[in-house]
Amino acid sequence: MDSQKPFVIGVDLGGTNTVFGIVDARGSIAAEDSIKTQAYKTAEEFVEAGTVCLKPLIEQVGGIEKIAGMGIGAPNGNYYSGTIEYAPNLSWAHDGVVPLAKMFSDKLAGLPVRLTNDANAAAMGEMAYGAARGMKNFIVITLGTGVGSGIVVNGQLLYGHDGFAGELGHVIMDRGPKGRTCGCGRTGCLEAYCSATGVARTAREILATTDRPSLLRNKPADEIESLDVSIAAGKGDEVANEIFQFTGKMLGEACADFAAFSSPEAFIFFGGLCKAGDLIMKPIEESYNKAVLKIFRGKAKFLVSGLMNANAAVLGASALGWEE
Amino acid sequence: MDSQKPFVIGVDLGGTNTVFGIVDARGSIAAEDSIKTQAYKTAEEFVEAGTVCLKPLIEQVGGIEKIAGMGIGAPNGNYYSGTIEYAPNLSWAHDGVVPLAKMFSDKLAGLPVRLTNDANAAAMGEMAYGAARGMKNFIVITLGTGVGSGIVVNGQLLYGHDGFAGELGHVIMDRGPKGRTCGCGRTGCLEAYCSATGVARTAREILATTDRPSLLRNKPADEIESLDVSIAAGKGDEVANEIFQFTGKMLGEACADFAAFSSPEAFIFFGGLCKAGDLIMKPIEESYNKAVLKIFRGKAKFLVSGLMNANAAVLGASALGWEE
Repeated sequence: MDSQKPFVIGVDLGGTNTVFGIVDARGSIAAEDSIKTQAYKTAEEFVEAGTVCLKPLIEQVGGIEKIAGMGIGAPNGNYYSGTIEYAPNLSWAHDGVVPLAKMFSDKLAGLPVRLTNDANAAAMGEMAYGAARGMKNFIVITLGTGVGSGIVVNGQLLYGHDGFAGELGHVIMDRGPKGRTCGCGRTGCLEAYCSATGVARTAREILATTDRPSLLRNKPADEIESLDVSIAAGKGDEVANEIFQFTGKMLGEACADFAAFSSPEAFIFFGGLCKAGDLIMKPIEESYNKAVLKIFRGKAKFLVSGLMNANAAVLGASALGWEE
Repeated sequence: MDSQKPFVIGVDLGGTNTVFGIVDARGSIAAEDSIKTQAYKTAEEFVEAGTVCLKPLIEQVGGIEKIAGMGIGAPNGNYYSGTIEYAPNLSWAHDGVVPLAKMFSDKLAGLPVRLTNDANAAAMGEMAYGAARGMKNFIVITLGTGVGSGIVVNGQLLYGHDGFAGELGHVIMDRGPKGRTCGCGRTGCLEAYCSATGVARTAREILATTDRPSLLRNKPADEIESLDVSIAAGKGDEVANEIFQFTGKMLGEACADFAAFSSPEAFIFFGGLCKAGDLIMKPIEESYNKAVLKIFRGKAKFLVSGLMNANAAVLGASALGWEE
């Protein structure tokens, strides 16, 4: 690290807000501000507004010469090309390829700018500041609206031939005719079971096939969310715990296949579901050790993200800024 | 590469024979000899015999100072430690850890010696001399008695945290109650369907459930081998082709999951089954492109090993010798 440049910029580009943070080497956020992602008609207008938002933050830490680089975590972000490609949820990037890294770099005196997708940024953040410090082989699994992943191998993020490696939410868990429909248009994907919507769907299926009492019956079935299951499980609700057992079994079996691939030191889970702690983590680990090939049994750590309470997405993206 | 040391030693340590080859930078074998792997009671005796076998080969190319390093491909070989660990098929290594790389190095004037498993050695060989020259992200799948794999990411072999990454024969393809028993003690593994014994089992199952005529009926069902299926398929036998369709579908679906992991430029297949050419390769590729996530569709190459007619295992192992 260049001691003359003690800061990086981290950008969490989400569907609603885009948060800009100035981050130091220990992962402290020195300055932060945000803009509305979709208040702009074109990518040019978005970048212009972002630059205006960034300028005073940069001045606060002593000017652009104190900044080593900038990292952006964005949906459909391609690391190799620094572009956002056909991002369905971004009005100014849904039907084309936006060279966002270059556009920001041009506005910021040629500052090195790197870009990747959200889950890869999370993995970078865990390695730089979180639960994966010192690890060279681990997998971050993000449990949110979807199921994402960032895979680190030999201390490097796995991008693959085209920049799109690490789509572990879309490995097939059920190849049979009953495999659940996934948002990707196929059936049986891990995401269809273990995303927030997948967990809610499991809840509705289990409630419909039993008469057992449950706190989850206090709400109309079609309004149940993943968070309701977590709250009920925390209160000892049996049906909610069965939902977590089912979800954890699926995640553990998926991780057993991932071990056969890259044999990581740890699986690190990120997202709302992990806030349930052992209620979800124990079923995952038990299922894994039951399902995995003997040579891997008992070796892998199952950890909750070390960045859950910080601004993880900004920190994760900022870690890319140190790469130059 | 050190021009003073234009050769490496490649060792293919198999259950029956251990072949030693002296290999140049273009992948030509300058000298070769072999010993019986299991004619020795201890690892020490095996290494002593191997050294005696190697000495005249080394002299042939000008002595040990012309050799850059040595690579060994061996069952249950661990790259990180240079050991063979609990190899079930090796009498002198089945119930312990043998530091084979160090033992050979000590006998050969401190020559750098590296060791890995057979499938990883095959991947090194493809990258150095075969179908993967110039590629940085690819997966070699070996179809033999078992199903093995060597995964290359960012130009490096994927060893994982413990040295045992890349066991793709043991991802689970059928989680249901009908999943086939695998040699690893679990059920539903890719290997149980797509190894030579898996293909023979598919043949018996299909023959037993139909009355259709087939060349495969010329043999008692329990004597049918994978090679018989290849020969029959080559003659246009319908049942044999159905067996290949089934096997190819399974391999293509597995590769679709592997793409979600490391998004390789190519899948390279090695082993007897591939000699059937398009009869097996076309079903694999078609199944893959049907099953894979849309962003990967049509991108990956499906190739047969470029080392099938050479001494692939020796060449593959020798590629490790250049690493120093």
